[in-house]
Amino acid sequence: MAEIHFWYDFASTYSYPTAMRIEALSKAQGVQVAWRPFLLGPIFADQNWMSSPFNIFPAKGRYMWRDLERVCGRYGLAFQRPDPFPQNSLLAARVALALSEERRPAFTRAVFHAEFAEGKAIDDPDCLCSILTALGENAAEVMTTIKTEPHRGQLRLATETARALGVFGSPSFTTPSGELFWGDDRLEQALDWTVDQG
Amino acid sequence: MAEIHFWYDFASTYSYPTAMRIEALSKAQGVQVAWRPFLLGPIFADQNWMSSPFNIFPAKGRYMWRDLERVCGRYGLAFQRPDPFPQNSLLAARVALALSEERRPAFTRAVFHAEFAEGKAIDDPDCLCSILTALGENAAEVMTTIKTEPHRGQLRLATETARALGVFGSPSFTTPSGELFWGDDRLEQALDWTVDQG
Repeated sequence: MAEIHFWYDFASTYSYPTAMRIEALSKAQGVQVAWRPFLLGPIFADQNWMSSPFNIFPAKGRYMWRDLERVCGRYGLAFQRPDPFPQNSLLAARVALALSEERRPAFTRAVFHAEFAEGKAIDDPDCLCSILTALGENAAEVMTTIKTEPHRGQLRLATETARALGVFGSPSFTTPSGELFWGDDRLEQALDWTVDQG
Repeated sequence: MAEIHFWYDFASTYSYPTAMRIEALSKAQGVQVAWRPFLLGPIFADQNWMSSPFNIFPAKGRYMWRDLERVCGRYGLAFQRPDPFPQNSLLAARVALALSEERRPAFTRAVFHAEFAEGKAIDDPDCLCSILTALGENAAEVMTTIKTEPHRGQLRLATETARALGVFGSPSFTTPSGELFWGDDRLEQALDWTVDQG
C-alpha cells in the first residue's frame, strides 16, 4: 500500500483541518498515512524567526485567522483562536511520539480539537493526561516514558529528518518518490501524487 | 453582475497560473473580474524584505519552484524559470494600467506567458512593445503615456489601495463584501464566495 508521511507541529493552525481530514481522504484513495510530529521552532530559527511568521508578519497573520475560519467553516470544523498563539507544542509532540503508530492519530486529533475547537492549553500536562485517559492510554506511564533520554532524542531526530526532507512549514507531506507538498490546501494533490506516481 | 478584484504583481510566480485560469472560471460562475496590477515591492519592504521571500528563505524557494512546476503541469501550462528572478515588474505594471479594463487581461496573459513560458525579460521595453503590437495596440503611444506623471501616480495608488485592503502577496482576490483571498489555490474559493456571499 502506498504510504504518505504527514508532518505536523501541534501549534500549527492549518495542520488542524488536515489532521481532521486526512484519514477519510487517504482511506478513500487506499493510501497509508504515517503521522510524523516534529517541531517547527528549530526550523523557523534557521531563518531567524523566533515566533510564528503569523505573529512576525501582521498582515499575513490577520489574513490567516480569517482564512482559517473560512476553511474550518467549509469543513464543518469548530474553531476558536488559541490564546496565546502559538501554543508550546513540545509536550504534545513528545507524547505523540511515545505512542505507537496505530494510537498516534486519535491522540493527535484530540489534541488539535482541544487546542483549536475548545481553546485549551496543550502545554498543560493535565490537558494531555485527560486526553490520554479518555483514549484508554495509561497516562502516568506515558508521562514517565517521555522524560527518558532515548525518548527525547526521538523528537530531535524527527525534526532533523523533516529539515533534511526540505520541510519548512506545517502541515507538510512527503511521498515515496520524494515529493514534498506543503499546506492543508495541498493534501488532495499529495494523495493524488502518491497514488499516481508514488 | 458580481465582481471580484484580481490583484497581481507581474513578477509573481503563482500569479501566472491564475492569470491563465481566471477568465474561464469566472465566466462559468457569472463573475466579472477587475484586473488590478500593483507592486509587491513596497509591501514586502514593510517587513524588511528587499527581494522575493522565495529568495530570502531558500527552503521555501526550492519548494515553490517544484510546486509551481507541478501546478503548471496539472493545468497544462508551459513553464520555465525566469532568470533573473524576480523580474522587475514596474514597466509591465505601468503599461497594464495604461490600457483600458477591457484590453488589460489579454496584455496581462501575454506578459505572464512571455515571462514564465518563454523566459523573456519583461523589463525590456522591446518585449513589451512586441506584445502590445501583436495585440493591435499602439505601442509607441502607450510608451509615451506611461511616462507622464498623472499616469505614474496610478500605479502608486493601486499599490496603496492593495496595501489598505490587507494584500500582502500575489495573486490576491478581494470580494464585494470585503473578503481577502490569497494564492492561486484560493481562486476557486474566492469565486464561490463572491457568488454565494458577495
